Amino acid sequence: MAEKIVLTGDRPTGPMHLGHYIGSLINRVELQNKYQQYVAIADMQALTDNFEHPEKVHQNVFQVMLDYLAVGIDPSKSTIFIQSLIPQIAELTIIYVNLVTVNRLKRNPTVKTEISMRGFGEQVPAGFLIYPVHQASDITIVKGTLVPVGEDQLPILEQTNELIRSFNRIYKAEIFQEVEPVLSRVPRLPGVDGKAKMSKSLGNAIFLCDPSDEVAKKVMTMYTDPDHIHVNDPGKVEGNVVFTYLDAFDPDKKEVAQLKEQYQRGGLGDVKLKKRLIDVLNHFLTPIRERRALFAKDKSQVMRILLDGSEKTREVARQTMEQVRKVMYLDYE
Amino acid sequence: MAEKIVLTGDRPTGPMHLGHYIGSLINRVELQNKYQQYVAIADMQALTDNFEHPEKVHQNVFQVMLDYLAVGIDPSKSTIFIQSLIPQIAELTIIYVNLVTVNRLKRNPTVKTEISMRGFGEQVPAGFLIYPVHQASDITIVKGTLVPVGEDQLPILEQTNELIRSFNRIYKAEIFQEVEPVLSRVPRLPGVDGKAKMSKSLGNAIFLCDPSDEVAKKVMTMYTDPDHIHVNDPGKVEGNVVFTYLDAFDPDKKEVAQLKEQYQRGGLGDVKLKKRLIDVLNHFLTPIRERRALFAKDKSQVMRILLDGSEKTREVARQTMEQVRKVMYLDYE
Repeated sequence: MAEKIVLTGDRPTGPMHLGHYIGSLINRVELQNKYQQYVAIADMQALTDNFEHPEKVHQNVFQVMLDYLAVGIDPSKSTIFIQSLIPQIAELTIIYVNLVTVNRLKRNPTVKTEISMRGFGEQVPAGFLIYPVHQASDITIVKGTLVPVGEDQLPILEQTNELIRSFNRIYKAEIFQEVEPVLSRVPRLPGVDGKAKMSKSLGNAIFLCDPSDEVAKKVMTMYTDPDHIHVNDPGKVEGNVVFTYLDAFDPDKKEVAQLKEQYQRGGLGDVKLKKRLIDVLNHFLTPIRERRALFAKDKSQVMRILLDGSEKTREVARQTMEQVRKVMYLDYE
Repeated sequence: MAEKIVLTGDRPTGPMHLGHYIGSLINRVELQNKYQQYVAIADMQALTDNFEHPEKVHQNVFQVMLDYLAVGIDPSKSTIFIQSLIPQIAELTIIYVNLVTVNRLKRNPTVKTEISMRGFGEQVPAGFLIYPVHQASDITIVKGTLVPVGEDQLPILEQTNELIRSFNRIYKAEIFQEVEPVLSRVPRLPGVDGKAKMSKSLGNAIFLCDPSDEVAKKVMTMYTDPDHIHVNDPGKVEGNVVFTYLDAFDPDKKEVAQLKEQYQRGGLGDVKLKKRLIDVLNHFLTPIRERRALFAKDKSQVMRILLDGSEKTREVARQTMEQVRKVMYLDYE
């Protein structure tokens, strides 16, 4: 049995926020100690629905990399690479697109949801429809077998495994192993407005790079219990975003439990509670912010790390494509 | 105004026949004297509808190359390359697929016809649907501006030009010029059975590599005038495949004109006519066959030419992608 390899990554479409931290970054910091881990900054995939704003994607590659380094993704343990610098990913995608029908791609529930969210209607760019194939390439080009995902991304991995099975069957190959999801143990962090998903476009996100006064401002607007009007009213803890965040970030679990009791009983005001959360978040974010600022000062060093990781990945990808070419009779000499 | 560059090529799905010669090979032998010409052996595109038979595609790469050399495509004038050896074509395809919608691809009349001919029904491989995008990549990666095509392929070039316009507009670039078709001056050569198209799958083709007795056998079955039963009956020249072939291959135009008169008057038998065509074709094919046999003996030299052409193309493609990366902010440093 081959060693397990993790492939994970992000589309560089904006700075990363606390939702990303809880949903994926924290896992990567752990996974890099247990497995070989590749982290893709997926600029080509960001272009599938941002093709008119390439400069935005470019800028965010650096921002996302700063976020990675700031939270402790360690380039000596994780190989971080820029997707567009690995031409083999495109090559393998062009091979995989023959192994899946247009209708199968359209049936992918994740893609269906995303198409409707983006309001593409009938005008779906072909690149967007095939992005799960592109993602299968990202994963398999480095022989990834473990992919951290949210529940909503499981259909993408299912499609990856279909492609792997088709490839291995048709080309009588054993190059790729089927992949397994690594599901996040913690539930998704809601936005400050209480909406299920924190996202930049919804304007309800606290970013890892937000200055402390910005964090304070956002926490003060946070959704709590709309029926908890006076300090002495009993309040609800469930669905109260402040408590969800305290659960996620406050290291003193015992005290959080006491606060919950007090809040439910009545006698604990939202402002006092929010001030605690502001302290907790800023305590958590300050070292991240500081590390981020330090790295931001030396862009050329950060880009060097990213280019080194890309070069290392390219070499692995080159070896994978050599195997692919062999079983597909594409090795000419 | 930049120098015009020709891009042409074939899917290596079988040996080439007289229809290919008349429809495209003869043009290339002329075009290589007037323009810089690239000839793609499009193995990746052959895989879009032959993905289950990669070994067949592989073998035909060599066969097609032998046909090229045998008819006089001269590697010192034309750059012949294997598509899969140019990873930049895949990279550019992945960029172009964002600039076209799935629906637009489905509306392409050429693709529509081909999908129905291949009986894909609802099960169209995604790779087949996007092959016009892939072809746009083949053309533009070498900055091709002239593309020899048949009438039925014009929608593919239209789509190429749409992609070029979108790319130049969105990325404020002037990297690619719109392409022009070079339409074949001679009408398409029918099959020996009189069907409009000569093709391997219809079993009505005379191949450039057919031995002389095989040519004779095929000509003897050739469709003439079904009402021309006795030698002295008057016969029809129009739709008479033997005359179509004599028009295409007999250097003695005057004598062909006389034969037509005699045939229409009555007094010229099919067998006599066919014997003339056999002589004409074998006279035409013998030097091609000999050159083919000579090259076939030295496979490693032939492959060397092909690998050299691929390397030269890859270098041009690398430069093109450097320009593409620049305008798309994909040049990281």
